[in-house]
Amino acid sequence: MTHYSDPQRLQTLIDGLDQFNATPGKGTTRLTYSPEFRQAADYLRDRMEEAGLTVREDAVGNIIGRLEGSNPELAPVMVGSHFDSVPNGGKFDGQAGVIAGIEIAFQLKSRGLTPVRPVEFIAMIEEEGTRFGGGLLASRIMTGKVDMQQLITFTDDDGISVAEAMQAYGLDPASAHQAIRQPHSIHAFLELHIEQGPVLESHGEDVAVVDAIVGLGQLKVTFRGQAGHAGTTPMNARRDALTGAVSALAQLPDLALAIGQNAVLTVGKLDVYPGGANVIPDLVVFTADIRAPKEEVVRTLMDQTRAVIERAGGNGLSVEVEEQLFVAPVPLSSELHKCLSHHADALGLKSRTMVSGAGHDAMIMADFAPTGLIFVPSRNGISHAPEEWTDYDQLAKGVDVLFLTICDLAEVKLTD
Amino acid sequence: MTHYSDPQRLQTLIDGLDQFNATPGKGTTRLTYSPEFRQAADYLRDRMEEAGLTVREDAVGNIIGRLEGSNPELAPVMVGSHFDSVPNGGKFDGQAGVIAGIEIAFQLKSRGLTPVRPVEFIAMIEEEGTRFGGGLLASRIMTGKVDMQQLITFTDDDGISVAEAMQAYGLDPASAHQAIRQPHSIHAFLELHIEQGPVLESHGEDVAVVDAIVGLGQLKVTFRGQAGHAGTTPMNARRDALTGAVSALAQLPDLALAIGQNAVLTVGKLDVYPGGANVIPDLVVFTADIRAPKEEVVRTLMDQTRAVIERAGGNGLSVEVEEQLFVAPVPLSSELHKCLSHHADALGLKSRTMVSGAGHDAMIMADFAPTGLIFVPSRNGISHAPEEWTDYDQLAKGVDVLFLTICDLAEVKLTD
Repeated sequence: MTHYSDPQRLQTLIDGLDQFNATPGKGTTRLTYSPEFRQAADYLRDRMEEAGLTVREDAVGNIIGRLEGSNPELAPVMVGSHFDSVPNGGKFDGQAGVIAGIEIAFQLKSRGLTPVRPVEFIAMIEEEGTRFGGGLLASRIMTGKVDMQQLITFTDDDGISVAEAMQAYGLDPASAHQAIRQPHSIHAFLELHIEQGPVLESHGEDVAVVDAIVGLGQLKVTFRGQAGHAGTTPMNARRDALTGAVSALAQLPDLALAIGQNAVLTVGKLDVYPGGANVIPDLVVFTADIRAPKEEVVRTLMDQTRAVIERAGGNGLSVEVEEQLFVAPVPLSSELHKCLSHHADALGLKSRTMVSGAGHDAMIMADFAPTGLIFVPSRNGISHAPEEWTDYDQLAKGVDVLFLTICDLAEVKLTD
Repeated sequence: MTHYSDPQRLQTLIDGLDQFNATPGKGTTRLTYSPEFRQAADYLRDRMEEAGLTVREDAVGNIIGRLEGSNPELAPVMVGSHFDSVPNGGKFDGQAGVIAGIEIAFQLKSRGLTPVRPVEFIAMIEEEGTRFGGGLLASRIMTGKVDMQQLITFTDDDGISVAEAMQAYGLDPASAHQAIRQPHSIHAFLELHIEQGPVLESHGEDVAVVDAIVGLGQLKVTFRGQAGHAGTTPMNARRDALTGAVSALAQLPDLALAIGQNAVLTVGKLDVYPGGANVIPDLVVFTADIRAPKEEVVRTLMDQTRAVIERAGGNGLSVEVEEQLFVAPVPLSSELHKCLSHHADALGLKSRTMVSGAGHDAMIMADFAPTGLIFVPSRNGISHAPEEWTDYDQLAKGVDVLFLTICDLAEVKLTD
């Protein structure tokens, strides 16, 4: 089939961006405000400029390329995704959506098309929360959902706060509020993302148009006991923080299975201190990530998880459970859903409507501006791993849908 | 009571050594061949020289101060302990034994005493195994128990081999074999150590003379699964390495409790990869440290542990269990036991005979040379933690016992 977008350039751009990676050969690792992140930001800026955009870095490090409209007073259509990664993840998660936007800018330029309404192409920071916890930071800041005080209280594993990291990166944390967008200043937000699950591939479908995003809660759990020598403390005199944590962890998967309703619970990050083979652990910290399509299911599963964890305390162990994040399930714009689905059909693509199991910046943007989200297939459903993959032909089909939708929203006259 | 040794100088020396610490304010962390380790080695060298010793660094970094005997042909008495630490441990573990030796050298010097038999005061590397795993490295190398090839295959968490770390530290790994001692080249090995348990304190006793050291086995366990996105992979389609590891870990303390006979089992080091809150773990690596006074109990508990872990594999998870270390329970020299006990009694100290629950370099030295080990009390029985503490008066009592025993063994004529 004829694409508007160019699979070859999509590949070149994604591989180009993937040069900036702390773990080459072991997947993609690009933490927000790291040296690789700065290089990646500069790379994106250069490509956006080549695509004819006017580029700026906003006050928290989002890279925004603007294609001016013939009516610059109109609120822009915004399209993009994030360019940070999980540790040892893939080169498509988030990044494919950033590159999709840049490819659309190249298409508009090469066709000499000028929109009536401005279009802003964005590459966003810290969606994964790998460095500072919580995640979705760019969209939460842009939509005014972050108390700027949190830039000081949120820290990475080395105790560096967001504000300190911003400063080292060349940003002024005191100006971070300048990244907040005014209400009604964005006409629509569009994001393309990889599915990160097996549904599209297993059904032989090209794209999914997302109508809602699951609810998401994250708990941070801390068990504290007493360190001691592994050889000299009898088993029944121990206050072993790991033993306590394990007794809770062993019950968690069954909670999610029992509640059903597509709920999932993941412990992905767990640290044991002090971490010597012959030292009884005095501190264990882990996260529990809980998701489900229905808000009440997320809430119930969070409560059950908290109860199981708190019961594992006592016997000399103290337990703390902290809610790090809660986002209710989010419906996306039904108008944009119609528009995206229409263009998928018009392009002859096989598409489906689905609920996203993953949180995305689109979820945060959705109550700020009409928001649409489409997925392209993930090979074997794998994501957040080096094996993450989407064929560039498949990606190009999704980019085409996005391109036509942007042309509609920004009033671009397509002549062919 | 009158001490031979000086509690004030013991304190000064221990605090002096503790300056070289990667985690000031959070306990003592001094990894072998780290910058702090180099500074500590230089500090010990300087103090040994002040105490009148001729100091050399052997081929693997042990610091050895020699007090020549009037008959330099005789095999020396060796006394000392290790100066590496666990992460965020205390300033007495190992280090008190090193400083005990230096204090004895100061005592011999200030009294103008010359031994007939040479005395070597030693500060040993990598007893804890914190950096390279396994532990007891100095004594295992000195007694010819390390295949030099292992200097290349043993690596730290950053993948740096012992050989590479030696090179960066200023040692030549190709010469490491020069640290091996000839058979019969050591007349006796003596070590003072903190008890690291509650027995002496709870009985109001001054010193313990150890007659045997528990057997010790360490297993390194690896669970491998498949990474994936926390939101998009249904619970029943996961290959979560942490869920598998937890199902095994939950059973381990009960194995040790069930077998009884003073067996202990500790999981002190556990790492989860890739370590993102929203990523299903594909790799979990942990250690199981198993100890008991009887060899058959250690072996049985290791076998039971291995079986539980292997049963937790399957369902898409692969499991690997590797024996990192096995040391049979070790009886110490009954002659030295008599000698140490005699001097404790003569000094009017309350003493007891005990089995050591912790492994020590003395355990390795024991089948190479007659070996004696004494313990001084640990406050609240705590060790491997910042709260680790021994009163300097208590420490001085143990040093006195050691001093008199060395005088016997090295044929020093005490005139007072």
